[in-house]
Amino acid sequence: MKIHNFSSGPSILPDYVLRKASEAVVNFNDSGLSLLEISHRTDSFIQILEEARELVIELLGLKNKGYKALFLQGGASLEFVRVAYNLMNNHKKAGYIDTGRWAANAMNEARFFGEVVTVASSKDKDYAFIPKNYSVPSNLDYLHLTSNNTIYGTQFQNFPKLDIPLVCDMSSDIFSRVLDFEKFDLIYACAQKNVGTSGVNLIVIKEELLNRTNTVLPNIMNYKMHIEKESMYNTPAVFSIYVSYLTLQWIKQQGGISAMEERSKARSELIYNEIDRNSMFYGTAAKEDRSLMNAVFFLHNQKLSDYFDSLCKEAGISGLKGHRTVGGYRASMYNALPLESVSILVEVMRKFQEIYND
Amino acid sequence: MKIHNFSSGPSILPDYVLRKASEAVVNFNDSGLSLLEISHRTDSFIQILEEARELVIELLGLKNKGYKALFLQGGASLEFVRVAYNLMNNHKKAGYIDTGRWAANAMNEARFFGEVVTVASSKDKDYAFIPKNYSVPSNLDYLHLTSNNTIYGTQFQNFPKLDIPLVCDMSSDIFSRVLDFEKFDLIYACAQKNVGTSGVNLIVIKEELLNRTNTVLPNIMNYKMHIEKESMYNTPAVFSIYVSYLTLQWIKQQGGISAMEERSKARSELIYNEIDRNSMFYGTAAKEDRSLMNAVFFLHNQKLSDYFDSLCKEAGISGLKGHRTVGGYRASMYNALPLESVSILVEVMRKFQEIYND
Repeated sequence: MKIHNFSSGPSILPDYVLRKASEAVVNFNDSGLSLLEISHRTDSFIQILEEARELVIELLGLKNKGYKALFLQGGASLEFVRVAYNLMNNHKKAGYIDTGRWAANAMNEARFFGEVVTVASSKDKDYAFIPKNYSVPSNLDYLHLTSNNTIYGTQFQNFPKLDIPLVCDMSSDIFSRVLDFEKFDLIYACAQKNVGTSGVNLIVIKEELLNRTNTVLPNIMNYKMHIEKESMYNTPAVFSIYVSYLTLQWIKQQGGISAMEERSKARSELIYNEIDRNSMFYGTAAKEDRSLMNAVFFLHNQKLSDYFDSLCKEAGISGLKGHRTVGGYRASMYNALPLESVSILVEVMRKFQEIYND
Repeated sequence: MKIHNFSSGPSILPDYVLRKASEAVVNFNDSGLSLLEISHRTDSFIQILEEARELVIELLGLKNKGYKALFLQGGASLEFVRVAYNLMNNHKKAGYIDTGRWAANAMNEARFFGEVVTVASSKDKDYAFIPKNYSVPSNLDYLHLTSNNTIYGTQFQNFPKLDIPLVCDMSSDIFSRVLDFEKFDLIYACAQKNVGTSGVNLIVIKEELLNRTNTVLPNIMNYKMHIEKESMYNTPAVFSIYVSYLTLQWIKQQGGISAMEERSKARSELIYNEIDRNSMFYGTAAKEDRSLMNAVFFLHNQKLSDYFDSLCKEAGISGLKGHRTVGGYRASMYNALPLESVSILVEVMRKFQEIYND
């Protein structure tokens, strides 16, 4: 049976990526060796790392705009620390917009390196919306946003143009929509949603920003060192980087980010229309802030959940369970998810309503 | 042609591991999904992570001895920071034995968290030996050793029994020989030599030690947090952990660490005998400190290197180049390397001598 993979991450990858990655594990580039057992300093891997970094810059439309891309280990959670450690340098103070659990985690980690100013928050409304019309103090080392909030299904639709550096955790929506990426001074993302599998993070830094960074910090935490060593300061996550490289290739083959955005809009329109139409379900995210990546919805009658779950299972729908902190359902629709999978889910939702209404 | 993989890391893996890992990339556990695209919270992956952690403890003979195993991201280089950040807590002072570049890197990173005392060093002899008869001050938060020094081919043969915590970077020789692992309070290792591929680190901690650790530090840096969350504080490096799991299974199937030690002794005896016998080559490491993992050797006549290299290439020998900072040759002989590969190398060394002597 075909599985429809709505997993929130690690999440669905294109067949092209899986096939090539699987081959590389037994015989990489016809070398007779596995990608898992070659030195990260072999020419063939160095070339892949360089191409992956170039593809990132190209796909984001940042070519010749003074940006560098890095692939580092540690998860976005390590970038919470690295960002603050590197950038809380001058005012020793940074602004954060608290739009959910991951934003709050970033804030908690940053507090070890300076003062954290909550510029805006939607916490008191269970993170159901994205704050707007906030004012950003000028005496901050940076403003930090979380562009998409997977648990609550909200997403920033607009980004401020600021006089201070703008830092964005795009872990769950990078490469899914066209933005003016030049607005951002530092973007980071874990790979396991739109750009590969777990084990590696992508960081995109405006080189100018590095002049503002703290230089007195451990090498492994130092963005400048990683830029200088071209992501090779220590042994990189070779396989995970290769999977990101293949995924970036696939995005380019499909037509780049604008093609991803079209796919994304088609998928999310389909599911949100059904959530709004279907009397069995309701959404919690403010409509104008709905995420194109994660549609979060709930049953009016929680007692019917086993029945809905069994219908989903019959249809091959996987990974639909909501985050354990909020419950309900979450359809994560990352780049590789075909529209067909959303159609199947919508069919199941309709069938469920029809049967129940009989 | 069969390749004889002497790569210093990422390095050779057993065929069993490569075959199973490759399968999992297209279809994991007959789920119809790739291991790369399933949630790290699925039961099947949680079970693998738990079994991998148990196998670590079992293989090291630490069952019921109060130790916990973790698989984290960031490379051993991140553990340089984490160790000091967590443990330089009481005296704000730690002892390090400087046996090479990696030991020195660990010291440089630790300096951000307290005073680093060089308890002993072989730096002035180009790290060609392992210091002995050093005395360890008692007012240190821990003593840090690097058990095997890949670049110079030296290895600790004995470990001190101390009243202060003993921390050891075993990146390049863990699971290769039987030791009294209870001597150690914290062991860490990157996976890409003896226990998998790059992208994940193994950490083994005596639970008692955690009572001495700093608790006021960012979550991602906090060993206590990672123990509490059982390596799931943030999304783990799923694929790299699976490769480690398979490698641990393979080690157990082969007869555990004692079997690895036997293999290791046979390989290293063969190569060192040849280095000592063959008039074309010489070694630099003190004989009593020679590493069972990395045999480092040089040509007396450097001008013949192209010729020796071409003989190696003809025989399918790969990854023999010495570290770029010291030059020469390095035969890395990690757990999965068959004795046959060393035999082939020794044959080439003999052939080279014969031809040259004609």
